[in-house]
Amino acid sequence: MRIEAPRYTERFGAVRINEVQKVLELDSGRARGLSPDEDIAVRKIEEETLKDFEQKLAIAIPIKNEKLKLFEGVISGVPHECLTIVVSNSDTEKVDRFRMEKDTLKQYCHFTRRRALIIHQKDPVVARALEAGGYTDLLDEDGLVRNGKAEGMLLAMMISMMVKKEYIGFIDADNFFPGSVWEYVRCYAAGFSMAQSPYAMVRVLWRYKPKASAGMYFKKWGRVSEVTNKCMNSLISVKTGFDTDIIKTGNAGEHAMSLKLAEILPYASGYAVEPQELVSIFEGFGGVLPFAHQAGAKHGVEVFQIETRNPHLHEERGVGHLQGMLVPGLGSLFHSKLCDSDTKQMVINELVNQKAIRKEEEPAMPRAYRPPTSLNLKKFSTVMKEHMASYYAINGQ
Amino acid sequence: MRIEAPRYTERFGAVRINEVQKVLELDSGRARGLSPDEDIAVRKIEEETLKDFEQKLAIAIPIKNEKLKLFEGVISGVPHECLTIVVSNSDTEKVDRFRMEKDTLKQYCHFTRRRALIIHQKDPVVARALEAGGYTDLLDEDGLVRNGKAEGMLLAMMISMMVKKEYIGFIDADNFFPGSVWEYVRCYAAGFSMAQSPYAMVRVLWRYKPKASAGMYFKKWGRVSEVTNKCMNSLISVKTGFDTDIIKTGNAGEHAMSLKLAEILPYASGYAVEPQELVSIFEGFGGVLPFAHQAGAKHGVEVFQIETRNPHLHEERGVGHLQGMLVPGLGSLFHSKLCDSDTKQMVINELVNQKAIRKEEEPAMPRAYRPPTSLNLKKFSTVMKEHMASYYAINGQ
Repeated sequence: MRIEAPRYTERFGAVRINEVQKVLELDSGRARGLSPDEDIAVRKIEEETLKDFEQKLAIAIPIKNEKLKLFEGVISGVPHECLTIVVSNSDTEKVDRFRMEKDTLKQYCHFTRRRALIIHQKDPVVARALEAGGYTDLLDEDGLVRNGKAEGMLLAMMISMMVKKEYIGFIDADNFFPGSVWEYVRCYAAGFSMAQSPYAMVRVLWRYKPKASAGMYFKKWGRVSEVTNKCMNSLISVKTGFDTDIIKTGNAGEHAMSLKLAEILPYASGYAVEPQELVSIFEGFGGVLPFAHQAGAKHGVEVFQIETRNPHLHEERGVGHLQGMLVPGLGSLFHSKLCDSDTKQMVINELVNQKAIRKEEEPAMPRAYRPPTSLNLKKFSTVMKEHMASYYAINGQ
Repeated sequence: MRIEAPRYTERFGAVRINEVQKVLELDSGRARGLSPDEDIAVRKIEEETLKDFEQKLAIAIPIKNEKLKLFEGVISGVPHECLTIVVSNSDTEKVDRFRMEKDTLKQYCHFTRRRALIIHQKDPVVARALEAGGYTDLLDEDGLVRNGKAEGMLLAMMISMMVKKEYIGFIDADNFFPGSVWEYVRCYAAGFSMAQSPYAMVRVLWRYKPKASAGMYFKKWGRVSEVTNKCMNSLISVKTGFDTDIIKTGNAGEHAMSLKLAEILPYASGYAVEPQELVSIFEGFGGVLPFAHQAGAKHGVEVFQIETRNPHLHEERGVGHLQGMLVPGLGSLFHSKLCDSDTKQMVINELVNQKAIRKEEEPAMPRAYRPPTSLNLKKFSTVMKEHMASYYAINGQ
């Protein structure tokens, strides 16, 4: 894989945010030395290097009642070396969709000899394990894990910690193109291979997001992303005193972290989860507030933003969905201790413009979750281990 | 890459047509031995094997006034080890689109250190070289190469023969997803790695061809493909005496051949080119007519049909384009010496149904081209060689 070398890095305390790097080549052939000076502009990441990182990488796929054909396609795009972790919150009553997902995954893994596990978000064993581990934040009144993609993602992180992976990447289950999924995962692996700090994050920027209405129009920026990025950049600019537009992936659903980093960040629920990750990094390592983690501050936290070659084509959710995404993301920004009054006003103006809130209203503060390190992993694992074999697609592996 | 093992092979004289094989995994990870019995159902083709074949493979991209962004995307999906050959018939006057394609390719190859060449179909040097080689079939009244995709493909074959590649694969320039292009080329390489005969062809079947109108509908079969396949299967069935539906890729634009096979087949012009290739194979090696080539008959001709994981999303051409594709394809079938009266009647009924011809009419016979072996390659090369350096994207390589 060939990718642009990062040409500019914005520094914010101990945080290093790299400018967008474009994927140049999906498949750069055999390992060969670069010609002199080639690496000034371009990084070539060899197949073997990518596979080294894929082997240490868990791919989490949160799913809720998604079309099975899309789900199977998504799994088939994940490189073989990764461990796939499906966290499902699909229906189990009336039509047992979870059962169908399980069957699909098992059949797929049977033919491809792949390691994957699938677990239901409402599995009582999981709830018991979380309780044993002292992390009841995720549980609702019924004593089961709350609904929500963010909650599924947190669960996937904890399972990845338990099975000792080093990285975790997230992929949505509604992607139409297995080839795009494959590229996302390679972007994750490529990013981690370039990281100098063990505290690293990779966020994917889609080259285009085609709109199927009336022919094909290749949109670069969704409205939600545009607004989120603008407000996030304002937050950084005010603190550093220099205008910046470095953040291009504020809402990136497709993203990955080293578990070292994932473990120590606080999270938000719902669609606030992805923007909140950046906010948590800025709060914890931006140097304005006290550092959240000594080793993290010492090594620094690195953020990569990688632009894919493939466009992103997924199920259309409509406008309601977009507004539903905008408010929580900006809410996490608005309620950050870092957020200055100018940025707060910008957030409110944008939300009023979008008719998402009324004047004089504020966006709600998203529910917060403590960092996964608050979980007693040993106690969590003790409960989980007894049932782990049943979660694997191919028995016990 | 993991792919289904062929479960059934139809034999027609010296021709072996394999049933459709599905791609199971785009990326099957590191080389590892298969567990016992795994290869009953599945073939795993290692990364190194794919690259061995890619190295011997020329990828021909015929282009005519295509959007440059699509063109650049398509190139970026081709695996690095392949030699890319762009044959352009784009405008050179008013707006010099050929010039823009050349610049795009050069810029891309500059950053990725890739081997590619680009040549204009109307280049007088090419016409001179063809004349020197005694293959004037391709030339029109002006003494230049005729318009048409088929003519561009033939030119790409001849150049591949000249630069001593062993395989040639064709990719359309209007594909929206670089990741699909990448998969097509891997299918080609995978097919050739499974072939037992040096006379082999790989035809790609798209998993789905999404229609963007009113949401996304994932069509499996286009009307043109359905009709072409039906008539082609009828032709085989009548000769073997057993009904068959083995042919699923009669119109496959995405296909590849060993040059050993490509050299000895006669071709048709326009949209008849892809169906005609199969008709030529049946005529030459089906055992009904005299064998067209002794070594080919001895080794047998193998046809692979591989179904991709990725859907196929490309520029919409509208209904006129579809009818324009149907008539020439069925014309090549209709006028084959192999075609029995039942199949002829079927062809006419289908075309009348589609309002493509009137009753009592026959589809026209497409223009025919002699096999590329009729070209005196040495004489052709002598003229071409002087100018080859200027055709390469990176000077002289």
